[in-house]
Amino acid sequence: MADSFIEVETLVVGGGISGLKAISDLIKHGCTSCLLVEARDRLGGRLHTVTGYQGRKYDLGASWHHDTLVNGLFLEELSLEKEEQAGYVFDDFLPLMFDKTRGRVDSDPELTLEILNEELMRFLELQFLEDVDAKDCSYFEMVVRYLFERRDLLSDEQIQYLPQASRFLELWHGIDWKTQSSKFLEIVHQGRNALVLHYDKIVKRIARTIPQDNFRLNTSVNQISRQGRNVLVKTADGLLYKCDYVIVTVPQSILELSLHDKDEAARIKFDPPLDSKIVRALNKTHYGSLGKVIFEFETCCWSKKFPKIVSLGQSNSSFANSVRQARDLNSLIHTLGHDTKYNYKNGQAWDFPLFFVNLAKTTGVPSFVMLMQEPLTAYIESLDDPVKVFEFFEPILKRLLEELSCTKAIELDLEGVRPEKADDSPVLKNIIWTRWTREVYSRGAYSACFPGDDPLDLVIALTSDEHARVRFAGEHTIMDGAGCVYGAWESGKREAAIINKAFGRV
Amino acid sequence: MADSFIEVETLVVGGGISGLKAISDLIKHGCTSCLLVEARDRLGGRLHTVTGYQGRKYDLGASWHHDTLVNGLFLEELSLEKEEQAGYVFDDFLPLMFDKTRGRVDSDPELTLEILNEELMRFLELQFLEDVDAKDCSYFEMVVRYLFERRDLLSDEQIQYLPQASRFLELWHGIDWKTQSSKFLEIVHQGRNALVLHYDKIVKRIARTIPQDNFRLNTSVNQISRQGRNVLVKTADGLLYKCDYVIVTVPQSILELSLHDKDEAARIKFDPPLDSKIVRALNKTHYGSLGKVIFEFETCCWSKKFPKIVSLGQSNSSFANSVRQARDLNSLIHTLGHDTKYNYKNGQAWDFPLFFVNLAKTTGVPSFVMLMQEPLTAYIESLDDPVKVFEFFEPILKRLLEELSCTKAIELDLEGVRPEKADDSPVLKNIIWTRWTREVYSRGAYSACFPGDDPLDLVIALTSDEHARVRFAGEHTIMDGAGCVYGAWESGKREAAIINKAFGRV
Repeated sequence: MADSFIEVETLVVGGGISGLKAISDLIKHGCTSCLLVEARDRLGGRLHTVTGYQGRKYDLGASWHHDTLVNGLFLEELSLEKEEQAGYVFDDFLPLMFDKTRGRVDSDPELTLEILNEELMRFLELQFLEDVDAKDCSYFEMVVRYLFERRDLLSDEQIQYLPQASRFLELWHGIDWKTQSSKFLEIVHQGRNALVLHYDKIVKRIARTIPQDNFRLNTSVNQISRQGRNVLVKTADGLLYKCDYVIVTVPQSILELSLHDKDEAARIKFDPPLDSKIVRALNKTHYGSLGKVIFEFETCCWSKKFPKIVSLGQSNSSFANSVRQARDLNSLIHTLGHDTKYNYKNGQAWDFPLFFVNLAKTTGVPSFVMLMQEPLTAYIESLDDPVKVFEFFEPILKRLLEELSCTKAIELDLEGVRPEKADDSPVLKNIIWTRWTREVYSRGAYSACFPGDDPLDLVIALTSDEHARVRFAGEHTIMDGAGCVYGAWESGKREAAIINKAFGRV
Repeated sequence: MADSFIEVETLVVGGGISGLKAISDLIKHGCTSCLLVEARDRLGGRLHTVTGYQGRKYDLGASWHHDTLVNGLFLEELSLEKEEQAGYVFDDFLPLMFDKTRGRVDSDPELTLEILNEELMRFLELQFLEDVDAKDCSYFEMVVRYLFERRDLLSDEQIQYLPQASRFLELWHGIDWKTQSSKFLEIVHQGRNALVLHYDKIVKRIARTIPQDNFRLNTSVNQISRQGRNVLVKTADGLLYKCDYVIVTVPQSILELSLHDKDEAARIKFDPPLDSKIVRALNKTHYGSLGKVIFEFETCCWSKKFPKIVSLGQSNSSFANSVRQARDLNSLIHTLGHDTKYNYKNGQAWDFPLFFVNLAKTTGVPSFVMLMQEPLTAYIESLDDPVKVFEFFEPILKRLLEELSCTKAIELDLEGVRPEKADDSPVLKNIIWTRWTREVYSRGAYSACFPGDDPLDLVIALTSDEHARVRFAGEHTIMDGAGCVYGAWESGKREAAIINKAFGRV
């Protein structure tokens, strides 16, 4: 009680895009007393652009403008002078999909997997449209249900390959089909996706609108407590801030830490504890771990025709047989659940679908950006040795290159000792991979829905009180743009507007 | 008043699938006094299977099971013994699309037309989602609007080819982009489409459940009038039926004739006239004219890889230029509207996108079924000479075969005088084409939406009174399955159930 404190009108917790947008809008509208505290030593949060071999740049976190028909951040970018804009390139195209043994399975008039995937999405949607109270289940279970109910209308090969092809959605949600909700599976794209080149430029542009004095890096928050109409915020460096408003933009994964007593550096103690509605909602939502591995080659010696490639999880030949002979759905789900157990810790990379962005096609950079999902992400992110990462993915990388008409063996030259190459064999110069699951201030990638979750509950719980002094922003606090950069950005804009309004700043 | 009359509990007007299903369900539930009158000399209505060269069969009317996840008629078919079922084959696949000068434009990673078409659909949807009262406009206008607003995000080639590629939807609606509503454009497929082999088998199966005595073919209805609780129906043969219920299943185009006094054989005079709600709704909906031309070749000498092919309307090279330089949208719409005027009466087939079903791939029959739209349909259906029809489409047919790796010239042998062929050149033995627009009892194909129409109004006006004695069924009287065979079938089922219930038959 005798602590001295620093008075601040609005304190923003977290320097990701939502926090940056919030404080930028506060300042723009004349707020003279605001501060942003960030636990990391850098701004951007889950926007993180890094530099690799020969200065090539990559976004380890979010890297696309999604939903470009409605993406407010993208539209803002378009309104800028060219040199102010971060570059972008539309890179959506029908992905090349290949299977370990069969090879290409996309655009195959016998398999028609693109058409079946669409039918599968409608099948799922109808389950919940026809009965809003229908019990949610995993995407895996729903795929098996589709196969079981429609087996007379599918060929053996379609039954064999569709399940693995349908799993490409794992690379959107960052979690595998067995933990993914069916009810909140489908993604309706509001326009094309554009690869951003690169997000650091956008982060820096917004940060430039904020005086340096308004930032505190390396400053994590320990406690947020109410005192009358004020909010007291205690930071790890021992300082105490007395604020009118606090905007908490920490990831959902960090908010979840507040539900338990466990001692974690990133944990914020709320006093009084988080509202029971928020607690209930946090228990009905989860967090995914989309991870990335970037394979940097010396030069491009593969086809640039396809911007995106999916390597399918290995299909089980007895799978179709089981579907054909099943007497009832439940035992089929049980059997197939067992038959499709993951074995990745023994180096079996083919257990998962993987998504490759062929930057050579999109931006001319001879690298592949590979996306992976839980539980694989946590495993790969636990590795320290790039050679181990390479060895894990080598069989898939080899097949990928073959599908892109490059049949020469991959040469590993991570030490950079090999002389300038004379032939056109693929020389791997560097591997970069994410550590999001290991970082104490992220613990993964972004919000995800397990069966039974309801993402709307959390959004309502965190945002419905227009008069709350402890406010929330971030990708998990908004429905339009949930899980996306522009959604986070909009949420920061939303919170700043509410506070500006409360102080009569228009 | 002194007329003698025949008493019938329920009279069904029209022997298409909705009328057949209705009377079949009445009889199944024990109705002993019902009759179906049909103006044509055959049952089936707009389901019509014909026989061509060497006994090959084609459906000139509807020919697919649409929405097979929810299609009740399809599910009923599946429940039958194999030999009772009409065959079917799922024939959905990414269509091959070609342009007159550029050749193939589908699956092109530079054009990405599939992706842009999807974005265009979302763009349209958003216009009406964001503002439910937004004024409807033609699909053509909306395409131009999209190009204008997004031109900085599109390449010249994308601006050139997307408009023509987007017109493939004309072959669903049966009308061209300039008369098509934007608001009611999008088709959400509830599952794959299956080509039916053939619909005559389904028509016959349902007809078999109805004793012959319950049919009157060649019997058109002149007047439907109310007399107390009864309905009097006067037929062209001078007979008068006194009924408890009448189910009017004539096409929407025939119902429209009742709005005016014009003397037409198919016109039904309603006394009292049709309810004002129905009149208003009929004025807010239109009728399309999907037509078909079937090209029967002697043998297949082309690639069987693609089940469906779209030949695009010719793109105008100055089109992209106009879009780039336009200052305002309205004058752009005006300019482009003028630049894209049709010239088909001078033999310019390239004015329209055309859809080809490659039966050689789907069913092994060496014929193409070509779908066309208004206003082309009315023109082609006005021709009497197959040589004229061939000459009109010859340039497109030639390019189609080239795209399917058949470069030899087409030989015309409609008289069948050519000896068995020795080489692998394509010999055209017969051409069959529809006359739906010329037939007095159809006057086109099925319901369609012009800008400003609202299909729901008509459905409500025709079906909302559960106690009405004059009832309606058909593809235009139902939302789920509107314009589809299964929708018509469901509407017949619906009306029979209401009447069965009124008489306590369960």
